[in-house]
Amino acid sequence: MSVAFTVFKGSANDGIVEATTSLPSPTGTQVQIKITHSGICGTDEHYKHLDMVLGHEGVGIVEHKGENVTEVELGHLVGWGFYHKTCGRCELCLRGQDQYCLNKQEYGTANHHQGSFGSRAIWDESCLYKIPPEIKPEHAAPLMCGGATVFEVIETYNIRPTDRVGVVGVGGLGHLAILFLAKMGCNVVVFSSTESKREDALNFGASEFYITKGIDRFDVAPVDHLIVTTSFLPNWKPYLDVVKRRGTIYPLTVSPENLSIPSLPLIARGIKVQGSVGSTRGVTLRMLDFVVRNKIEPVVELLPFTKAGVEEGMARLREGSVRYRAVLAAED
Amino acid sequence: MSVAFTVFKGSANDGIVEATTSLPSPTGTQVQIKITHSGICGTDEHYKHLDMVLGHEGVGIVEHKGENVTEVELGHLVGWGFYHKTCGRCELCLRGQDQYCLNKQEYGTANHHQGSFGSRAIWDESCLYKIPPEIKPEHAAPLMCGGATVFEVIETYNIRPTDRVGVVGVGGLGHLAILFLAKMGCNVVVFSSTESKREDALNFGASEFYITKGIDRFDVAPVDHLIVTTSFLPNWKPYLDVVKRRGTIYPLTVSPENLSIPSLPLIARGIKVQGSVGSTRGVTLRMLDFVVRNKIEPVVELLPFTKAGVEEGMARLREGSVRYRAVLAAED
Repeated sequence: MSVAFTVFKGSANDGIVEATTSLPSPTGTQVQIKITHSGICGTDEHYKHLDMVLGHEGVGIVEHKGENVTEVELGHLVGWGFYHKTCGRCELCLRGQDQYCLNKQEYGTANHHQGSFGSRAIWDESCLYKIPPEIKPEHAAPLMCGGATVFEVIETYNIRPTDRVGVVGVGGLGHLAILFLAKMGCNVVVFSSTESKREDALNFGASEFYITKGIDRFDVAPVDHLIVTTSFLPNWKPYLDVVKRRGTIYPLTVSPENLSIPSLPLIARGIKVQGSVGSTRGVTLRMLDFVVRNKIEPVVELLPFTKAGVEEGMARLREGSVRYRAVLAAED
Repeated sequence: MSVAFTVFKGSANDGIVEATTSLPSPTGTQVQIKITHSGICGTDEHYKHLDMVLGHEGVGIVEHKGENVTEVELGHLVGWGFYHKTCGRCELCLRGQDQYCLNKQEYGTANHHQGSFGSRAIWDESCLYKIPPEIKPEHAAPLMCGGATVFEVIETYNIRPTDRVGVVGVGGLGHLAILFLAKMGCNVVVFSSTESKREDALNFGASEFYITKGIDRFDVAPVDHLIVTTSFLPNWKPYLDVVKRRGTIYPLTVSPENLSIPSLPLIARGIKVQGSVGSTRGVTLRMLDFVVRNKIEPVVELLPFTKAGVEEGMARLREGSVRYRAVLAAED
């Protein structure tokens, strides 16, 4: 038995291609999901020149499952981020750092034939999250990658409610960072290129807002942590100056460039630059619980789950006009 | 009352100048030290174009003290590193991160008129360390900056005896890092430009040794921590490849350049770059205790405590021929 479904892929000329693909029906611990929603993430831009199915903020309904599936039932709403089937046995998994699993099967390498831009997907249950009923599916989607990525920083690197935290960039990740941190009682300081997002940022819970365009020196009390969510790497010099001694910078921007960071202030002030990507499974579970208890709602714009919808969402992401996460939504 | 003493200073043309200076006799919590030994550190090179007294690895005998000194007695052997009179009240001091004190009086700024390259110095007792009798003064001197700098990394950033630790560069700092880490039971992996220091590195306790000159890809099992002690910033690419996922790089090199670090492997592997300089007072105290209990002896070359001795030591440091710390030693 096999199942055929629609997918939206990248291509050599960067155009979005609609195609039909087919996979064997789920067996063992595999789960077949009817996708209802998918967020569109900046990282999709990095894969769109490849002949692979895009999307890694998926949400959908379990419609078939293999004989050994124990964690989810038919009809459950589930979500997933990057496809990360981890081994559970390597040093990283055993230390609770499973997103860095030495043996993981990664989306984008082994699984070009499916992603969350499509009508269905088949994944191992170990990479799925049951979405609590309090979270709407269109809100769950952006949490799967964008939310998890910033929650990982907060949770794994121990950002405290007593900390003053800078968030650079107010997009999919940035707006979620502000929502999370404000709810935790942090002092949240936002850096954004222009004035246009000031009011929203303050409504999300920021206490201060600074524009960055053309600024080479900020007049800002320094922060304990600086979470950088911009789509392009910034000029680091002015940001280094607003990080406290022994503070941390998290450069979440995915870029092929080098981080070019002034050495002397880094060492003289004991600043650290912490790379981070995705989240551990445990962190995503804690995020979902936190979102439910604190009624956090990502701000999304819904688009039709069609080729035109994918194209429009990715174009608007490139031009920076999304408020604040584009989410593809299937009609039924 | 004042005390006159000999000092060795930098100058605009980088030449070493011997001069006589004079300070008021110690009062309050000040201590007058007759300097017996001083290490020569790479950082002295960075100050030698300034009209200031060089040296920040001082050891000597207390010969006078102010009326409020309580911690040291006449005749005690004491040492000091960078002059760091810290405030004890700021957020950093109160969190035990006193070397980053927001109000500290730093050597090299407020105190151009004295350093450890001289016959005497007058410092506040709060920046002095009593040297345990088990440690020879010529061994204590390199511990005051070089030793403290690497011990800070080990202690403050929690390097564990079960860790595999890379040490890049086998000089003043590097050889002490190997001695400390090997004694702690770590698996110590050394990177050095040529073969010349292989035997010494293995004798210090390293378990592996790799040459770096002309190498753009190492065939080395990755390390949990990489302590970089070279006098110039390295090409980071090959080093990033030998750091484990969630591992840490400590770029201790003092350089006006930018750290130019490939962004993608940093974030994809969750690597962190931790700036660090000097040590907290608590860490230096723990280092001295560790050195005594484990009978660690820095490897030093003694030079006369004269203008010629300073010049020879600094020249040999520049050419990389010191084995492994040059220490000026007064005749009596």
